[in-house]
Amino acid sequence: MTTAEGFRVLDEKSLREYIKATPSLASKLGTHELDNLDIKEVGDGNLNFVYIIISPSGSLVIKQAVPYIRLIGESWPMTKERSYFEATALKRQHDLSPEHVPEVYHFDKTMSLIGMRYIEPPHIILRKGLIAGVEYPLLAEHMSEFMANTLFYTSLLYLTTTQHKSAVAEFCANVEICRLTEQVVFSDPYKISEFNRWTSPFLDTDVEAIRNDKILKLEVAELKSKFCEKTQALIHGDLHTSSVMVTKDSTQVIDPEFAFYGPMGFDIGAFIGNLFLAYFAQDGHVDHENDRKAYKAWILDTIANTWNLFYKKFTSLWDIHKEGPGEAYLHEIYNDLELRELVKQKYMMDLFHDSLGFAAAKMIRRIVGVAHVEDFESISDLVKRSDCERRALDFAKNLMKKRRNFNTIIDVISVA
Amino acid sequence: MTTAEGFRVLDEKSLREYIKATPSLASKLGTHELDNLDIKEVGDGNLNFVYIIISPSGSLVIKQAVPYIRLIGESWPMTKERSYFEATALKRQHDLSPEHVPEVYHFDKTMSLIGMRYIEPPHIILRKGLIAGVEYPLLAEHMSEFMANTLFYTSLLYLTTTQHKSAVAEFCANVEICRLTEQVVFSDPYKISEFNRWTSPFLDTDVEAIRNDKILKLEVAELKSKFCEKTQALIHGDLHTSSVMVTKDSTQVIDPEFAFYGPMGFDIGAFIGNLFLAYFAQDGHVDHENDRKAYKAWILDTIANTWNLFYKKFTSLWDIHKEGPGEAYLHEIYNDLELRELVKQKYMMDLFHDSLGFAAAKMIRRIVGVAHVEDFESISDLVKRSDCERRALDFAKNLMKKRRNFNTIIDVISVA
Repeated sequence: MTTAEGFRVLDEKSLREYIKATPSLASKLGTHELDNLDIKEVGDGNLNFVYIIISPSGSLVIKQAVPYIRLIGESWPMTKERSYFEATALKRQHDLSPEHVPEVYHFDKTMSLIGMRYIEPPHIILRKGLIAGVEYPLLAEHMSEFMANTLFYTSLLYLTTTQHKSAVAEFCANVEICRLTEQVVFSDPYKISEFNRWTSPFLDTDVEAIRNDKILKLEVAELKSKFCEKTQALIHGDLHTSSVMVTKDSTQVIDPEFAFYGPMGFDIGAFIGNLFLAYFAQDGHVDHENDRKAYKAWILDTIANTWNLFYKKFTSLWDIHKEGPGEAYLHEIYNDLELRELVKQKYMMDLFHDSLGFAAAKMIRRIVGVAHVEDFESISDLVKRSDCERRALDFAKNLMKKRRNFNTIIDVISVA
Repeated sequence: MTTAEGFRVLDEKSLREYIKATPSLASKLGTHELDNLDIKEVGDGNLNFVYIIISPSGSLVIKQAVPYIRLIGESWPMTKERSYFEATALKRQHDLSPEHVPEVYHFDKTMSLIGMRYIEPPHIILRKGLIAGVEYPLLAEHMSEFMANTLFYTSLLYLTTTQHKSAVAEFCANVEICRLTEQVVFSDPYKISEFNRWTSPFLDTDVEAIRNDKILKLEVAELKSKFCEKTQALIHGDLHTSSVMVTKDSTQVIDPEFAFYGPMGFDIGAFIGNLFLAYFAQDGHVDHENDRKAYKAWILDTIANTWNLFYKKFTSLWDIHKEGPGEAYLHEIYNDLELRELVKQKYMMDLFHDSLGFAAAKMIRRIVGVAHVEDFESISDLVKRSDCERRALDFAKNLMKKRRNFNTIIDVISVA
């Protein structure tokens, strides 16, 4: 497939030639070793082709977007221009949180192709670690760091209105991918859709109950409006536990192709919501050797720490930059200590409630929508799986409806 | 002044030549009568030069933006590109509400020049009519019509996400004018600023009280965030009573150069807030012949009717287009009658509270900020004037703080 504009989907052979002809990639692998490359396609993602390229003296990853959703096939077209927004967001996030975002070596707009750092073993996808029951003692610390930095510095707490509106305008063009989220997160789970699936027949009545839940639909409409209209910060847009690669010491956030200016709570909620999914799936992974009780407690601790550390880091950045360029709260107006505390508390409480709402929306869609999570899918006993899913679903429905009644993350966890 | 790009400020002589050379303008005046034009500069606005051009067989208005704020002078630069956004918004709003927005005949981007319909006498600026105590029986009907049409059809209740994000991106470039609003509406009144003025010394302590009012500053921060971040609809952006021209039978909305994608409540609030300013100024216009009591009641009725008719028209458009292209509330999800009512009530209540908050912000800034209103300025007795202003100020402060406690516009009016 080669388009008029020069786009063509690469395979291993053509990729080899492409690397040879591209100094910014070739230099990472050692220019004398380009005939000796180990190239492996590892695209377990839903949307793209991903290659790992290793030479005796270097490595990198090549990610190429194709003009459809890989998970579904060519029948669901999706602009490959998302690759531009992914590269742009990756670079911005790497600048803001260099320890937790891989470096971009190369971007080719025509080819919708990104060359970036290979996140080497023993890094694995966080979701797989959560299923295996592995504790990551620094996960909350690292993720709160990533979110605090990327969200604070791209918001009006740090940017001028001029910078903010210019960035908002640029990312408005990533609209097709926003539409995909609108459909699969905020719409399809609440109606009959050919793409929806669930653990049937066990969850049939649960799925129907969602379609008939007026209050839930009222709440999801408000969340959808915020997703579509609230240009609060440059968000990752897809910050679930498969967008994070981990070891015990390292946490790397990848795949920001859903990035745009949206509500911060969508990122925080995606991460927390997916940790809750992992939590509710644990009972399906119990075996003779491990009752998973300690692990469940660790997940809940990690959720609490993520929010609490985020709160601390985010408000600390706000304090540091209180006389900075950000135009939301001018220092001349908000220079009183007590007032600054009030302002922070209000802002963070609104953000907390947004985050809980989006966490719930992300949980629901993973159980009754098109894209499911391995946390549950890997439970082969369908009765057991659907029990776990139902508990997650009930928790999420309650969370979405009652989110404004929660004042602390500990309150939320005590419900789980 | 002629810039490299070909921009030059026109005077009467050069304007005459310009019209002769521009068929879309010349044709409106009668091409044989172009040596017989009556040209009058009537720029009583804060920002631009405005000419009325009349020939024996036609008329039009020419509005030219200059690269500074006319009210302040060349010391406060302001991009003349605002003219592009004014022309774009005028055309869009004329399409959506043709009876209440003048037709654009011509737009010249290089010259930042708009040629449009002359809104002929006996049309006067609404603010002047309100000061004179003239009742406009159709005002609420017409303004609610204008607002319902322009706000509904540019929101996600009618647009697809693709159309919405594309329009949002376009108007992001009108950023300098947004910054002006941020400064003069949401910032300067709450701090010491060289541009602020007020009826001194009578309001000195009131002005200081605003700077020390923590709760008020907390609320105005939330409103400012909505102004900066909530891309709800294409708003007029400056919908006070001097942006409206009226006769008993006709209502014409002009000057949308502040247009951008923002919160709907900013328009509704601007209009209602300025009616409240007119109301509180009435006691300063009492004379032996007229105690203005009936007129005050008419203003309050007009405020109530504006909101109630807006509610009716807006939700009626929503009903009509419930299966239309708008992507906020998909019909498949929100097809239940009771649920639809719940959704509408929630949406409209949020919009009501936004509108009250912005109304209050617009009132406060007109009493203690840079730009005042003739309603008060025309009261020459400063004691009387400051009494009126203080009552307006106290009402506005209360409105901003307590806006979420009001359920109906009648509740609000009973406080006034």
